[in-house]
Amino acid sequence: MNRRLSGQARFSEDDLIAALRRLLSADAPGVHVGVGDDAAVVDLGRHPAVVTTDLLVEGVHFRRGATSAHDLGYKAIAVNVSDVAAMGGSPRYGTVGLGLRTGDEAPFVMELYGGMLEAAEEYGLSVVGGDLSRADRVVIAVTLVGEVARGHAVTRAGATPGDRIVVTGALGAAAGGLRLAQSDPSEVTESLGTDWARELAASLDRPVARVGEGQSLAQAGATAMMDISDGLSTDLPRLCAESGVGARIRRAALPVAPALHDLQKVLGTDPFDLALHGGEDYELLVTMPAEAVEPALRKLGERYGTSLAEIGEITEAPGEVILVDDDGGEGPLERRGWDHFGG
Amino acid sequence: MNRRLSGQARFSEDDLIAALRRLLSADAPGVHVGVGDDAAVVDLGRHPAVVTTDLLVEGVHFRRGATSAHDLGYKAIAVNVSDVAAMGGSPRYGTVGLGLRTGDEAPFVMELYGGMLEAAEEYGLSVVGGDLSRADRVVIAVTLVGEVARGHAVTRAGATPGDRIVVTGALGAAAGGLRLAQSDPSEVTESLGTDWARELAASLDRPVARVGEGQSLAQAGATAMMDISDGLSTDLPRLCAESGVGARIRRAALPVAPALHDLQKVLGTDPFDLALHGGEDYELLVTMPAEAVEPALRKLGERYGTSLAEIGEITEAPGEVILVDDDGGEGPLERRGWDHFGG
Repeated sequence: MNRRLSGQARFSEDDLIAALRRLLSADAPGVHVGVGDDAAVVDLGRHPAVVTTDLLVEGVHFRRGATSAHDLGYKAIAVNVSDVAAMGGSPRYGTVGLGLRTGDEAPFVMELYGGMLEAAEEYGLSVVGGDLSRADRVVIAVTLVGEVARGHAVTRAGATPGDRIVVTGALGAAAGGLRLAQSDPSEVTESLGTDWARELAASLDRPVARVGEGQSLAQAGATAMMDISDGLSTDLPRLCAESGVGARIRRAALPVAPALHDLQKVLGTDPFDLALHGGEDYELLVTMPAEAVEPALRKLGERYGTSLAEIGEITEAPGEVILVDDDGGEGPLERRGWDHFGG
Repeated sequence: MNRRLSGQARFSEDDLIAALRRLLSADAPGVHVGVGDDAAVVDLGRHPAVVTTDLLVEGVHFRRGATSAHDLGYKAIAVNVSDVAAMGGSPRYGTVGLGLRTGDEAPFVMELYGGMLEAAEEYGLSVVGGDLSRADRVVIAVTLVGEVARGHAVTRAGATPGDRIVVTGALGAAAGGLRLAQSDPSEVTESLGTDWARELAASLDRPVARVGEGQSLAQAGATAMMDISDGLSTDLPRLCAESGVGARIRRAALPVAPALHDLQKVLGTDPFDLALHGGEDYELLVTMPAEAVEPALRKLGERYGTSLAEIGEITEAPGEVILVDDDGGEGPLERRGWDHFGG
């Protein structure tokens, strides 16, 4: 065992994941979906289970002070629930590995767990275990185990040319909340009490995982599904790469979060840019046959009050992701989302 | 949700775990064993599953340079396998959350995964997922999901007065390996090539998880079981606390790792002290009725070549853990193992 990425000194997150997938590619009994999707799907007993892990690191994913410990705990659970949702599964159990600084953090830990428990209750899962360690930054590793109906797990790999591309809810709100939080206080004083500003902040701090929607979409014929955590312009190419297809999306069709128009008046930020490139929305990005879109749209509206926007279609050209502009001009979609190692 | 540990500014790891258990104590459907044991036991479908998480933090659990990346990966998996073994379960799937410094770590990561895969193969599990994040120290969060025969999960809570206390294998070797690694090189130059020194180093770097032994002991009538990760003098009181019992152990009965006698000649370290207080042995600490010991001992020897030592018995006095000295004198067992927050 001495496999090296020879000569490769720097790497992007996707490069590294690709290398690890080659390393981990051995077909193992009971493994339906392994490394590289939102979550793994495995057989336990003869029952399919969904397993996913996310790591939140202080200074990378959050800053102490910018978020309350309660919201941080809530979010740590919700983003993992979103990964289970993106497979069409439902979360059941969670474990929490927690790295803490030495001493005097008990109130912080209890508030953090308070937030985790609120999210756990909301999404119907139980926190059943964990591990504590000293660390010099707060590190939160959440793993969820969930269930999925046999044959109904939806990976990133099933998109077919001609499929429509749909997105739940609205995009860009979390990125808008982040801009608001990072902007000069004097610029935004008058905005902070408004409904739209609160809405953007909530999108960032208390993301909503689309569990019921994911299951509905799986039943409605979704061919591929993932959650948008790093931004549409990063995540859509990932889905295309997994499926060996291309995509064409229309900028004008993006479901821009309405509050971004208010934000634009204050900070000048382009709502469509935030919707395209902003991460942490945790909406579902889904492909499905054209005829499945309308029934799915109706079902999501009736059952969950969640909108579904058709933003484009899958094409044959592998890896080619095209953005059609408002004036009909088109070009390759620029990838400007979050990469942990790309800088 | 605003529960605080009022007024408590500093806390030990056990204090914090106790507080979290109160917070997480809600009886949830499908949860047989929750927070506080080696692993959780939950129902998935109608099949019992074992779930466990461990966090390894650079500078706390390991130092770069002191361990090879390969051994580190191996150990990260093995210590989690040990938690599954301590419930009487067998590991099936693993996820790995990995925090890394920015840039140039690809060879490190690939070697780390090489070690993980070696352990995964050895213990018959598949690494099916994970997450990568930037961090300023290496952080490894491993979660394993395993299986356990219905009704055969063994917690820490079932020890009964009169039960015998037994331990698999030998104790103190990992602590001996650590002493050796941390000692002045000039003191140990002549020892480093010897078999006993290599044995101690291997105990530290490549721990053995007792999976088959755990299942055998569960079937043989184990009433309580845990793995010894923080040292017998720390872990036995934990088992007693969970079971609401006390214990009396005999110093002379401890299965001291033979190589510790060689180490004593070089460094003067007391073998019995290392066996009592040294952590990271990952042997199983088990209680069982007196009549079950002999058959269990025979079975472990025949099937796995693993020894089983009877070191004492469970008593009625809750929380009272007594050490009987070689001369027959006795006193409370001093707790000198590892506490992540106790300093």
